Amino acid sequence: MESKENRASGAWIKRISPQLSPPSLKDNTADVDRLVKGIRKGLGDEEVSVDFAQIKGVTRSLRNHDYEVSAALFQEHNCWHLIDVFSAQGEDSIYGLALDLGSSTLVLRLMDLENGGIRDETSFHNPQIEIGADILTRIHFAARDGGLSKLQDILIGKLNEEINKLTKKNGIGLESIVGMSVAGNTTMTHLFLGLDPYWICREPYIPVVNSPGLLKSRDLGIKINPGAPILISPNVGSYFGGDLIAGILASGMTHQRETAFLVDVGTNAEVVIGNRDWLMACAGAAGPALEGGVASVGMMAGPGVIDRIVIDPATREFEIRTIQDDGSIEVPQGQKPVGICGSGLIDLASQLFLAKMIDLRGKFVPERCGNRLMEIDGIRHLIVVPSKDSGAGQALTLSQTDIDGLIRSKAAMYTILTTIANTVNISLREISRFYVAGTFGSYIDPQSAITIGMIPDLPLETYVSLGNTSLNGASMALLETDAKDELFQIRDQITYLELNVNQEFMNLFSAAKFIPHTDRSLFPSVKTGNF
Amino acid sequence: MESKENRASGAWIKRISPQLSPPSLKDNTADVDRLVKGIRKGLGDEEVSVDFAQIKGVTRSLRNHDYEVSAALFQEHNCWHLIDVFSAQGEDSIYGLALDLGSSTLVLRLMDLENGGIRDETSFHNPQIEIGADILTRIHFAARDGGLSKLQDILIGKLNEEINKLTKKNGIGLESIVGMSVAGNTTMTHLFLGLDPYWICREPYIPVVNSPGLLKSRDLGIKINPGAPILISPNVGSYFGGDLIAGILASGMTHQRETAFLVDVGTNAEVVIGNRDWLMACAGAAGPALEGGVASVGMMAGPGVIDRIVIDPATREFEIRTIQDDGSIEVPQGQKPVGICGSGLIDLASQLFLAKMIDLRGKFVPERCGNRLMEIDGIRHLIVVPSKDSGAGQALTLSQTDIDGLIRSKAAMYTILTTIANTVNISLREISRFYVAGTFGSYIDPQSAITIGMIPDLPLETYVSLGNTSLNGASMALLETDAKDELFQIRDQITYLELNVNQEFMNLFSAAKFIPHTDRSLFPSVKTGNF
Repeated sequence: MESKENRASGAWIKRISPQLSPPSLKDNTADVDRLVKGIRKGLGDEEVSVDFAQIKGVTRSLRNHDYEVSAALFQEHNCWHLIDVFSAQGEDSIYGLALDLGSSTLVLRLMDLENGGIRDETSFHNPQIEIGADILTRIHFAARDGGLSKLQDILIGKLNEEINKLTKKNGIGLESIVGMSVAGNTTMTHLFLGLDPYWICREPYIPVVNSPGLLKSRDLGIKINPGAPILISPNVGSYFGGDLIAGILASGMTHQRETAFLVDVGTNAEVVIGNRDWLMACAGAAGPALEGGVASVGMMAGPGVIDRIVIDPATREFEIRTIQDDGSIEVPQGQKPVGICGSGLIDLASQLFLAKMIDLRGKFVPERCGNRLMEIDGIRHLIVVPSKDSGAGQALTLSQTDIDGLIRSKAAMYTILTTIANTVNISLREISRFYVAGTFGSYIDPQSAITIGMIPDLPLETYVSLGNTSLNGASMALLETDAKDELFQIRDQITYLELNVNQEFMNLFSAAKFIPHTDRSLFPSVKTGNF
Repeated sequence: MESKENRASGAWIKRISPQLSPPSLKDNTADVDRLVKGIRKGLGDEEVSVDFAQIKGVTRSLRNHDYEVSAALFQEHNCWHLIDVFSAQGEDSIYGLALDLGSSTLVLRLMDLENGGIRDETSFHNPQIEIGADILTRIHFAARDGGLSKLQDILIGKLNEEINKLTKKNGIGLESIVGMSVAGNTTMTHLFLGLDPYWICREPYIPVVNSPGLLKSRDLGIKINPGAPILISPNVGSYFGGDLIAGILASGMTHQRETAFLVDVGTNAEVVIGNRDWLMACAGAAGPALEGGVASVGMMAGPGVIDRIVIDPATREFEIRTIQDDGSIEVPQGQKPVGICGSGLIDLASQLFLAKMIDLRGKFVPERCGNRLMEIDGIRHLIVVPSKDSGAGQALTLSQTDIDGLIRSKAAMYTILTTIANTVNISLREISRFYVAGTFGSYIDPQSAITIGMIPDLPLETYVSLGNTSLNGASMALLETDAKDELFQIRDQITYLELNVNQEFMNLFSAAKFIPHTDRSLFPSVKTGNF
């Protein structure tokens, strides 16, 4: 729960209760101008503007409430714009929404704009999944007749439904939601705005817009206060979106002297390196994607999903822990495990390696795996949870293909980190902080990720999991003028490194495809005998 | 025809031809941001904003025209806002419309926004006349179910029709009309904007809005470029509208050291006095209206209408001149006179007085009028044009009631002038310029108006007819940032004098109801023997 005291600068969405005297023959100022005058007085004579579309409503409100009103406003271009007028005896506060516009999951946070506190939060699947689980399918669907509007409509429809639930639950009127801040990747942002993502996946990968700026909820059909501004976190390009810019803001790395990494291991592998003076970024879409490794047996983290695995190197017994309904991780009691999430896979691979059940190329070692190994369609599978203990109706297995994919992904991540650090001529050991963003990232055990050589062998305290940085960045930008401005400064300041998959990259990549690496000196903490 | 050289300051509506390089892997800036970047370069790094509603169109234009485009923009709140994007090989210029939004006549002027020239002009009746000739009827009609939208709809419909004709005639595409500037009285402005004028005629006479600021043509359904800004000249109150503020701008009186009068003798009698340091205004709606005197036999100036009358004091023969098709005034040849306009009435009254056919109270003198006098329903009428010479199918006559009305009106005008001059402690003789605004005013012969005591007995060269000041002011504000800003400065600076009809006013009014005045020393130039 953030508090008012933590808010560094002024808000860009405000409520003012102007002192208005009712009209008289001595002061026959028009209704709208009377309100503007009163607000200007309250704001210390800053410029105030009322949209033409609002004029009728303002007059009605003023007269209905006998000129005893409060007004919500937002600031843009050094001018305060009226959002709406309320009875002075209305709601206790004004509210806003921060939205993490993920391609699989959407997280909606209800914020109190006056005290800066989080009032409530809800998360739900992106309804576009029914059209296409991956972004590329959606881009192709958008090109069909009516496809783009359908993608936008089901998204906005679902959002309205969830906003409605959230406000009802909290006893807040929809008209009291006077602002929204959205962070998503470039394609999701385009689909949210109804903009054609056609060129995003085609050379030279040009989005329609990088900084859409502020729009109004009524422009999008978002059913909150129709005059509420919607702030869209800007993108750097097709492969570095507003979710990452918001994430950089949330990490605070742009205020630190020491150089830090920020890594978002969601569906893509996005990496930022920098400090208060400079920022460089790249996205893993240019190399093999991390998501490839988690696709075949993986599941999203959730109740019943395996998140931690410990293998006794002597007995090679598996101790399996699953995520409980309350989010904690425990040895499953009643509920049987139903799948393995990405962080569980990383754990499993590192434990298999430490138990010498896979070798440094990631291949199963049959004499160590014993009867856990079986063959399906000529491909080796390791039984992680036998059928009788599984909640999925069949044994949970890990195939050689799955491990190969994971190794390509971890190699890509390590190569990207190495490449970007090389580009700015910084050794990985100089990194003072390694921020891990994303829900997926928050479950990863850094020790396991180091063991398989996915991330550098730095002291464990270097790794800081930040959770949902997109949502946190969007929340900060919703509350504070400085944070909102910083979003755009970060966007303008960042250097985007195009990861051309050249020979040098491929060499680095090949070396990183071993566990933990062909160069063991890079991973002194990983203790296991050579094969 | 104004020329570019006469333009004092920069334009607030501009066209820019930015140099844009097509997208490449080396510069993958998004379409909209690429355009904004190019425009900012062209404008010397000023802030540029693109409305969300325009984003799709911008992308389409950029790609259709291979990134060779020009852009129209307008400035508001220190930021340039995109109006539209055109092919760089498009029209020669960008255009705008100035509109004099009169309650009886609308005048539409087509302006070239790049060289500041007047391209064409058209005038037509206000279609709301079919609902009500006078403003009050329209205000009452607006209160009916659907009444307000009907008034707005027929007005906007007629405007669109005339705009269409005007642009077609000049070979200009509607999308090249990228701005509009409107000056009208407060009620007409409300009806144009679809705002309820209910309180305008009810104490304490509060308009909905004084300064609506800039809106977009699409907000009103004006069929020019949908992103074109519409500037609405601001009002001071219900009885001092944007037409008069535009008129003050056009007169230039706010730039002069000497004190001047600006008088608009349209349907109302509105008076402004002031100089570059101060401005005071009042409107004749508080006293008897001038329009009362021209209503019963009067006609709007136009072909065939009597505009000048000379009576030979010896023979008492009438020499009648009518307005010709080309606007010149001549003794009618073929065409017979059809009516008398307001300026003709003033001429007629002054000539009748000089020929002693009416006395100083304005009553017919039977022994001087002879057989021109007849009685209809017990009221004396003077035959101005006998039936056989009239083009109206019957004799054109002037009744005693008409003269009484004219005298009340001229007395009101003189009393208002005296009252406002007294308020600022300035003698009428200190007035260096007396600007007469309005089409009606431009036909008035100052000598005749002085003779009947309607305006002060100042040297004739003091009187300057300015023609359609509303239209001229609206045109200036359309072209120039300084002029646009000055509109709002004038509005804020002006002191509005509420003409309370008190005992002192009534005394002044009674004295002014004589021809020229009870105090003949005020009119030394009017030479006629006493009765």
